[in-house]
Amino acid sequence: MTAKETSPAHRTRSWWGWGWETEALTDAQCAALGAQLPGLPSQPLPVPALDGVDLPRPRISPPGTLAHRVSAAPRDRAGHTYGKAYRDVMRALCGDLAAAPDAVAFPRSESEIVDVLDWASAHNVAVIPYGAGSSVVGGTEYREGDGAGGHAGVLSLDLSAMDRVLEVDPVSRAARIQAGALGPVLEDQLRPHGYTLRHFPQSFEFSTLGGWLATRAGGHYATLHTHIDDFVESLRVVTPAGTGESWRLPGSGAGPAPDRLFLGSEGTLGVITEAWMRLQDRPVHKASTSLAFTDVGAAMEAVRAISQAGLHPANCRLLDPGEAALAGAAHNGESILVVGVESAHHPVESRLAELIEIGRDHGGVSNGPRTRDGQGQDGQDTAVGAWRQAFLRMPYQRDAMARMSAITETFETACTWDRAADLYHAVRDELGAAVEEITGAPGLINCRFTHVYPDGPAPYFTVIAAARRGQEIAMWDEIKAAAMDILGNHRATVTHHHAVGRDHRPGYDRQRPEIFALALRAAKSALDPRGVLNPGVLIDPDYR
Amino acid sequence: MTAKETSPAHRTRSWWGWGWETEALTDAQCAALGAQLPGLPSQPLPVPALDGVDLPRPRISPPGTLAHRVSAAPRDRAGHTYGKAYRDVMRALCGDLAAAPDAVAFPRSESEIVDVLDWASAHNVAVIPYGAGSSVVGGTEYREGDGAGGHAGVLSLDLSAMDRVLEVDPVSRAARIQAGALGPVLEDQLRPHGYTLRHFPQSFEFSTLGGWLATRAGGHYATLHTHIDDFVESLRVVTPAGTGESWRLPGSGAGPAPDRLFLGSEGTLGVITEAWMRLQDRPVHKASTSLAFTDVGAAMEAVRAISQAGLHPANCRLLDPGEAALAGAAHNGESILVVGVESAHHPVESRLAELIEIGRDHGGVSNGPRTRDGQGQDGQDTAVGAWRQAFLRMPYQRDAMARMSAITETFETACTWDRAADLYHAVRDELGAAVEEITGAPGLINCRFTHVYPDGPAPYFTVIAAARRGQEIAMWDEIKAAAMDILGNHRATVTHHHAVGRDHRPGYDRQRPEIFALALRAAKSALDPRGVLNPGVLIDPDYR
Repeated sequence: MTAKETSPAHRTRSWWGWGWETEALTDAQCAALGAQLPGLPSQPLPVPALDGVDLPRPRISPPGTLAHRVSAAPRDRAGHTYGKAYRDVMRALCGDLAAAPDAVAFPRSESEIVDVLDWASAHNVAVIPYGAGSSVVGGTEYREGDGAGGHAGVLSLDLSAMDRVLEVDPVSRAARIQAGALGPVLEDQLRPHGYTLRHFPQSFEFSTLGGWLATRAGGHYATLHTHIDDFVESLRVVTPAGTGESWRLPGSGAGPAPDRLFLGSEGTLGVITEAWMRLQDRPVHKASTSLAFTDVGAAMEAVRAISQAGLHPANCRLLDPGEAALAGAAHNGESILVVGVESAHHPVESRLAELIEIGRDHGGVSNGPRTRDGQGQDGQDTAVGAWRQAFLRMPYQRDAMARMSAITETFETACTWDRAADLYHAVRDELGAAVEEITGAPGLINCRFTHVYPDGPAPYFTVIAAARRGQEIAMWDEIKAAAMDILGNHRATVTHHHAVGRDHRPGYDRQRPEIFALALRAAKSALDPRGVLNPGVLIDPDYR
Repeated sequence: MTAKETSPAHRTRSWWGWGWETEALTDAQCAALGAQLPGLPSQPLPVPALDGVDLPRPRISPPGTLAHRVSAAPRDRAGHTYGKAYRDVMRALCGDLAAAPDAVAFPRSESEIVDVLDWASAHNVAVIPYGAGSSVVGGTEYREGDGAGGHAGVLSLDLSAMDRVLEVDPVSRAARIQAGALGPVLEDQLRPHGYTLRHFPQSFEFSTLGGWLATRAGGHYATLHTHIDDFVESLRVVTPAGTGESWRLPGSGAGPAPDRLFLGSEGTLGVITEAWMRLQDRPVHKASTSLAFTDVGAAMEAVRAISQAGLHPANCRLLDPGEAALAGAAHNGESILVVGVESAHHPVESRLAELIEIGRDHGGVSNGPRTRDGQGQDGQDTAVGAWRQAFLRMPYQRDAMARMSAITETFETACTWDRAADLYHAVRDELGAAVEEITGAPGLINCRFTHVYPDGPAPYFTVIAAARRGQEIAMWDEIKAAAMDILGNHRATVTHHHAVGRDHRPGYDRQRPEIFALALRAAKSALDPRGVLNPGVLIDPDYR
């Protein structure tokens, strides 16, 4: 079995970059894109031919009972070596696949996962649970030193063959869904029932329910229920110490919430195999608009006022001047606030009017409301569809820029409102200085607020800088470390929804209370006594 | 120091029952109340004089550095022996204080709590964190067998002297509050800033922030943010293994949520000393009404439709026919649905109209909307004030009925909508049969929905039955066990917001996934290696 066979419509996934192989930008498109940033080479790095790339010799031989579910095919091993961080793509482009797993397992049932964990525990084989590999934090990559005494081998455990919606309960509006289902795959199965999970991270096409749960994914919506955590009714988890399933409960106060220990555990405590998820009716009322602000501080105050007014906008996306310019939304130093409301049940115009009024109170100039009650094919209107397509194309462009030796890094955080403006300026100033020092030239540092809470925003930063060819990864590492330091100095979270993985460990270790670290290590020791599950993530290899 | 000194306004707390000593019903009031239920004796059990009650000799002597914060006064020991479950009140009335703690500590700072835990760990003394003792599940009572090898003594750790709002951040709308603050005490400190925590459990007057956090308390409001969990920005916790504080973050995806391990830990993992809590603006727009239904099933369907329509009512309280009759709201077999909406920012009439429309669609007959934008003293209008007073008086009446040898038990649960009607009828039928078998006569079994979610309701049951004098506790125990069995058979949670304590352990152990139990025991072992913190709660004594 190969990954190709498990892909919808038998399109081929890129082994080195984002998404479908056929959707990657051509050499000419890469060059044209790269010409927009000064200081880049004129030609893209070539994409190496897969059959020319060195893969280490596989060190493990799974038993006969598992063999038909395990592949050591070069494409599978190469495609499962990394996630999709900038440094992952760059290493693949450089033909560095030294970290490749020895094999990839594609289980088709929970009992096969149990067999894999039993075998791996008995043979000291590291197991890396894998949804669709969209991690941008090294969450699916085995690294030297991840095992205290080393592991005998590494198996990537790809859940993509377990992608079914198994049950729909229309009375409670919930569904039992297998963890390996990609976003479009599960939405396709829910649509005939009239429901949606309504969870649309940017990685939607190439990430799975299990991945979202294991990393506490954030959806597209700005407020209220947008994190996958809030949609979980019960979880089913396979650990080396046994399999468990929480009861389907709308609410319970019985002890610490069991599911919350596994949400965000990033494959270190167990393999999430399925979940009962709360569903939503499909929204039919939609309205949105944008407001322009000459002062980014005033725009932030408008967002704060909106977040504290109980209006729960579906969209409340603040683009700072650089981000607005990059998006083509403004070119005169203005900040742009996009607000939108949606409902499956009620007209939304009056709520949009209140949002606009708050924006105007803070100096925003409104473009007037746009109502979108009409729908096109697939429940999407044309404007939304166009925006969505552009949003989903961004990772392909990031890969193109990587081939042009441009560094692109996005990182997201959250902090309380009292520190938000300071943090914004500190990242712009301090990281700006760091980027110039590291690369020798100023870079772009833009910011948008993707999610907002009554007590603070979640700023999302984009850094774009020209690297020296051959120095891309070293420079990215330095920029990443500088960004993490700045966040930590401001006690802003190291990650709002990208997860910790291996890349965010230093910031995570600084942020996490040590008493929680003690508890988590102990839990790991109880559930994964041989230390085979995604070693090195969240928990030190010497936890036992 | 005595508990009396720590009470607001120097009123005296009852050592045997709910609340203030002076608010308890008189003998004549008890007799009059008891006359409403057939089969009860004509006279109440006497309240024993405290100086006539046997207390075991104290076995521990805290060191001199702690001595000035520790009391072995009979009133303190008696008042800290039990929580406020029916069986607690009955045992106190019977003069059974064999479980009294050896002493009660009233720390005034975190460092004193650290000293207490250090000393207790070194001397094998059980420590029972105590807010205001409103537990109805044996959460603050040491029982025989709670220590694997027994403990050298028991210390109740009363946090009521740590009751300050330490900081208010008006920009992020949050406050840092000490764990020992009673509901009215913290609201009094927030009011001058224009904010409220807006968390009003029935125990509001006699429960603390720390108790709410440790037991995952449910507030008065029916939907959206009503659980204390959702208002937590960061927690500070003292454990025997060290002290930790999470960062103030509006949202973070960095690993499993650290605070969620301590929320609901019921004093077994550490002592919560303070928390940054999200605040609310004080609501000024209020509207409510009630609808009558001839069919309880149709009323449940109306509540389901409301819960799935995204209207977020502040109140959505369904009283079944028995509950409606007991409340004087209906006497003809009707069910009553009370719906209310509140906002600090927006008029609420249109939202109430939508709620009424859904109720009517399901056969409800509306009493018409009541708007309550006007406010009386203290932000409360007269109708709300009257209802609130009656609600807060209920526990005093429960105590009066206990003195009349009537059994009163309330238990709350939650399940998904697909099973809600079955559960309701099963509890009525099966528990009704059990009560009749146990007590020899039919009892009242009423139900209301206190909280509702899109995927299911939280039914709250009240059982009232005449016991045989002298058999009250034995009968209550049998009824409690029968109720817990029925919930478990329907995979309904053993507790929605009353917590687990010692009384709900059988149901909790059945409900909790064993892999979570393994993790929790391991966490306990790491944070409380000597097993001194609230032993017997959530985790078996032999966890090490």
